[in-house]
Amino acid sequence: MNILLIYAHPESRSLNGSLRDFAIAHLKAKGHEVKVSDLYKMQWKAALDPDDTPGYDHQMPFNPAVESQRVFAAGAQPKDVEIEQAKLLWADAVIFQFPMWWFSMPAILKGWVDRVYAYGFAYGVGEHSEKHWGDRYGEGTLAGKRAMLTVTMGGWESHYSDRGVSGALNDVLFPIQHGILFYPGFTVLPPFPVYKTGKVDAARFDQLCSAYAARLDNLFTDQPLPFRRQNAGDYDIPALTLKPHIAPGRHDLGIHLTDSDAT
Amino acid sequence: MNILLIYAHPESRSLNGSLRDFAIAHLKAKGHEVKVSDLYKMQWKAALDPDDTPGYDHQMPFNPAVESQRVFAAGAQPKDVEIEQAKLLWADAVIFQFPMWWFSMPAILKGWVDRVYAYGFAYGVGEHSEKHWGDRYGEGTLAGKRAMLTVTMGGWESHYSDRGVSGALNDVLFPIQHGILFYPGFTVLPPFPVYKTGKVDAARFDQLCSAYAARLDNLFTDQPLPFRRQNAGDYDIPALTLKPHIAPGRHDLGIHLTDSDAT
Repeated sequence: MNILLIYAHPESRSLNGSLRDFAIAHLKAKGHEVKVSDLYKMQWKAALDPDDTPGYDHQMPFNPAVESQRVFAAGAQPKDVEIEQAKLLWADAVIFQFPMWWFSMPAILKGWVDRVYAYGFAYGVGEHSEKHWGDRYGEGTLAGKRAMLTVTMGGWESHYSDRGVSGALNDVLFPIQHGILFYPGFTVLPPFPVYKTGKVDAARFDQLCSAYAARLDNLFTDQPLPFRRQNAGDYDIPALTLKPHIAPGRHDLGIHLTDSDAT
Repeated sequence: MNILLIYAHPESRSLNGSLRDFAIAHLKAKGHEVKVSDLYKMQWKAALDPDDTPGYDHQMPFNPAVESQRVFAAGAQPKDVEIEQAKLLWADAVIFQFPMWWFSMPAILKGWVDRVYAYGFAYGVGEHSEKHWGDRYGEGTLAGKRAMLTVTMGGWESHYSDRGVSGALNDVLFPIQHGILFYPGFTVLPPFPVYKTGKVDAARFDQLCSAYAARLDNLFTDQPLPFRRQNAGDYDIPALTLKPHIAPGRHDLGIHLTDSDAT
């Protein structure tokens, strides 16, 4: 299969770099094709601005969505953006690997999302009516592809547990897993978290690689996070609120998973 | 009082620009001192990299936290970072204004956080023991200061309501409000959200300004989000999990608010 690894750490001689190299070698050994977007190495431009929309008339106020729609439709996007979109279309699965910085992704990776996720590509896709609110949250350009976060943290697993002070990991990652991955259509796998990155000796690194190998081997068979599809009947449209009989009375993020009625 | 406005939108001739200008004028008219960090105008460097830590020995692997600690302690940080830290220390309140892009902040603002939040300034502060896990989540360098998000969204209010498909707004913003603001000590006010930004005519803009003025006038008196302090007894240390008798059995993000027992 075709696997794209988006990597966002400034140092290759690091735990992140070692895990990246392990994943690439392991996936290739299993017969996969692998492409890598090493954002620091590529000196990826992070800030979305008018330079991203060639032909923009500076007399007019710059509206990022309007301009993105125009250049995407016209095939006039910057080359670096087009290349990343082509990699996404090529991939059967995408791994986003990054260190958790301030409970989100490093700026350089956020800038990859802001710029590559064009209007007409990742949003503004599909019928938009009172019955179908765009192809998003389970439908869209990237439907049928799998995505997984590989995320490293200095903190402990308990700090990100269900009642941990930093917030449960899947809740902290909700804006990414649901808002960035599920939105344009990805099937989202549970993340592969690495905790206590300050304390990784050779023995622990071997353990991490074994655990990572198991996840990589099951990339196409593991059960995904069962996010509810927006247009499949669970939400009222256009309010886009969960219907009252589903997870009644609840308003935690878990209600957006189809197994929430069982928990 | 001293108020810092961090602004991250690429266009001044926009709803965001107009709201920024309104806030500055309104706060000044009420007698406040106002400073602005207009990140696009400043061409803020977004990606944290070795250039941020002068004196770094490139023979060694680049460890962002270790290098940050070194240059912060040595007074050897880049000038742009020092200036922003000084603004934060000067401020009594900080407003972060940005459009919600992919359920988080634009990359340029994330890069402001990644670079300005140095080790010894925003993290790695205070006693770190089995009784006190650093000055964070309610303590820290920025304790005593207030912070508020002013965030614009194309989506509808219902989409971000308690059962809305995008996730409840305060849950989507948890990594920012709790992880970026509360962590280094800010007292966090409820956000000022602006929905349906595609449909703002003059009448609605006036309404928005009235509502915004009310929030700005109450910046120092409004009740903050009552996040639980990490070291004040609600969490077991060092596991940093909420004690079993608090919000028993629950594991939604709301448990990290002191009013969660009541909801």
